[in-house]
Amino acid sequence: MANVLKKECFILPEGIIYLDGNSLGPMPVDVPARVAGVMNEEWAQMLIRGWNKAGWMAMPGDVGTAVGRLIGAPAGSVVMGDTLSIKVYQALASAVKMRPDRRVILSDTGNFPSDLYMAEGLVGLLGQGYTLRTVAPEDVAGAIGDDIAVVMLTEVDYRTGRMHDMKAITEMAHASGAVMLWDLAHSAGALPVDLTAANCEFAVGCTYKYLNGGPGAPAFIYVRPDLVDTVEPALAGWLGHRAPFDFDLNYKAGRGIDRMRVGTPPVLQMAALQEAMKLWEDVDMADLRAASIALQEQFIQEIEAQVPQLILASPRDPHQRGSQVSFRFEHGYAAMQAVIDRGVIGDFRAPDIMRFGFTPLYLDAGDVTAAVTIIADVMNGNLWDDDAYKVRNAVT
Amino acid sequence: MANVLKKECFILPEGIIYLDGNSLGPMPVDVPARVAGVMNEEWAQMLIRGWNKAGWMAMPGDVGTAVGRLIGAPAGSVVMGDTLSIKVYQALASAVKMRPDRRVILSDTGNFPSDLYMAEGLVGLLGQGYTLRTVAPEDVAGAIGDDIAVVMLTEVDYRTGRMHDMKAITEMAHASGAVMLWDLAHSAGALPVDLTAANCEFAVGCTYKYLNGGPGAPAFIYVRPDLVDTVEPALAGWLGHRAPFDFDLNYKAGRGIDRMRVGTPPVLQMAALQEAMKLWEDVDMADLRAASIALQEQFIQEIEAQVPQLILASPRDPHQRGSQVSFRFEHGYAAMQAVIDRGVIGDFRAPDIMRFGFTPLYLDAGDVTAAVTIIADVMNGNLWDDDAYKVRNAVT
Repeated sequence: MANVLKKECFILPEGIIYLDGNSLGPMPVDVPARVAGVMNEEWAQMLIRGWNKAGWMAMPGDVGTAVGRLIGAPAGSVVMGDTLSIKVYQALASAVKMRPDRRVILSDTGNFPSDLYMAEGLVGLLGQGYTLRTVAPEDVAGAIGDDIAVVMLTEVDYRTGRMHDMKAITEMAHASGAVMLWDLAHSAGALPVDLTAANCEFAVGCTYKYLNGGPGAPAFIYVRPDLVDTVEPALAGWLGHRAPFDFDLNYKAGRGIDRMRVGTPPVLQMAALQEAMKLWEDVDMADLRAASIALQEQFIQEIEAQVPQLILASPRDPHQRGSQVSFRFEHGYAAMQAVIDRGVIGDFRAPDIMRFGFTPLYLDAGDVTAAVTIIADVMNGNLWDDDAYKVRNAVT
Repeated sequence: MANVLKKECFILPEGIIYLDGNSLGPMPVDVPARVAGVMNEEWAQMLIRGWNKAGWMAMPGDVGTAVGRLIGAPAGSVVMGDTLSIKVYQALASAVKMRPDRRVILSDTGNFPSDLYMAEGLVGLLGQGYTLRTVAPEDVAGAIGDDIAVVMLTEVDYRTGRMHDMKAITEMAHASGAVMLWDLAHSAGALPVDLTAANCEFAVGCTYKYLNGGPGAPAFIYVRPDLVDTVEPALAGWLGHRAPFDFDLNYKAGRGIDRMRVGTPPVLQMAALQEAMKLWEDVDMADLRAASIALQEQFIQEIEAQVPQLILASPRDPHQRGSQVSFRFEHGYAAMQAVIDRGVIGDFRAPDIMRFGFTPLYLDAGDVTAAVTIIADVMNGNLWDDDAYKVRNAVT
């Protein structure tokens, strides 16, 4: 297995062991110079001409191609833009139009709440009997019936790391005539994904977690190549128009994946992400996955040996788990704050989940052992204080 | 009238006279240091903790308040996020829900196409007889009848600069029972706007034009204060939830304008914009407007004297015009390219509009005279070549 460790490519603050790259990845060393260049040499000097001269207009597609390489999506099937919540809505709105005779969106209680909220907002707007049906993750397969228009799931559960079988569930969805939408928020850059093999119609994801694009980095949307020229974009923005600069009064969807563009792209964020994506060019996702599993297995073993009061909340089988390990603990919120205060940054997810992310580009076995030593010290010494932390302050 | 000129606060490239701040404002001098600080001191050092410690989570509201001050909107009625196209959709989707017995969205052919496209996408999704009705700008008043659910207009026409009377049209909309949505893309930072006096329910706008927030800077949405706690957000994202970090499975709209937030905000772009907004703290919008009109009147007078083949496309009355002047010319696209090549940057809008924006923070009378000299030289010498420019490359 090839080594994927490249700590020297990230700024990793002194005294911190960062097990929260699944919330916000650390800053790649080369990002500030790139963003400064976009500001000082492009925006300041080219002004409006930067849209063409500096390639700003092409960035959503160019970066989409780079992201696509990590998730088994060919060039021309992924484009960047907006936020993940907006991309969920966009994909879902297009998907329901593909099954006009059906009225149910199926999801599960392990999905990230914003996905469920966006679906709720969409069905509320549509009326006419559209509903969002939410079942337990283990009940999804049994709930796929011939009334389902769209199955919308997140591959990796944001709390526990439990993984759905993308290929198997997509097959079931298709067998029942439903459209499949996958959210890859905790998958892209975390583990191998093969959208082509999965054969789903839509996928979406964010880039500020494992892809290290920075706070508020743009989201992505994938449309299966055979559909990119026919899918109807409900969010019909001018940059998704076939000829935006003709300023037609009527919308004509653009060619290919470009039709899923909406408004003016955030160029500074796009540049930061584009620079961060360079770190992936020589990474084999199978190697990354092997390294991730090794770190996670080490962590579980060491925690269970030293801190038995933490109860594993993630699947024990590493192949059913994403790139994170979660433990349940009644006082998890306060305990996690105390651990963070000691320099090990993980996060808390209500009601009782202490969550730790593993990111082999900048974490090694020594970090894991050092982190466990601190966690054990805090937990076994009861060095946490429920009263000291009344406000929840983590961000997914 | 107080002087509003502050050229020293912007990077203005040598040899360029920039009459396109209505497409993309130039870079404020202090922006790069601020964005670098967010990257190097916040993202890199605080990592996930930046969301609270560096105030990232509060930025959409904080910046919204600063924008609100320029458009007559009290604190708590404006929030930043997404793109203008998304904000148009968001406002429109909420607005149609407020008049469930009506099915028509009324707009005009002077609206920016993306606004019309987003409305088209929304009515297509809604079905059930929802339609977008588009009339000529001068026919709007007569078209407001009791079948109209929402009147959606842009105050300043992006091609000609013609202004609608916000207060009068809003009154007509309300008299007929319709909800009013104004797009302030070419108004915010361009001229005085008083949303409180206009009394419209919704307004939206962008910040990369007159507000100099940078390419792809976030958009804003205003909701009239008496409605912020009852409006239903169709784009129901987790950061608009009452308690995002409770990770409820069901959406509960947040308090006040926060419910119009959707996904994770683009922190680098927000920081650039927040820095750019500081330049407005001491600007009186009445002074800015007087300076803008003086520059425009000078420009029209000098152009008409020296280049009579250009036909004024903007209203001659400065009080019916935004902060731009447009001329019609059959070969406008090629002519504008030739003018740009000589260092005067304006832009072209199909089919035949040569558009020049006036931004008194960084333009003075000397710039206007110098620009006219170059434009006259190019136009009177026929120094433009239709064949040389086959690709349109301007961006609104």
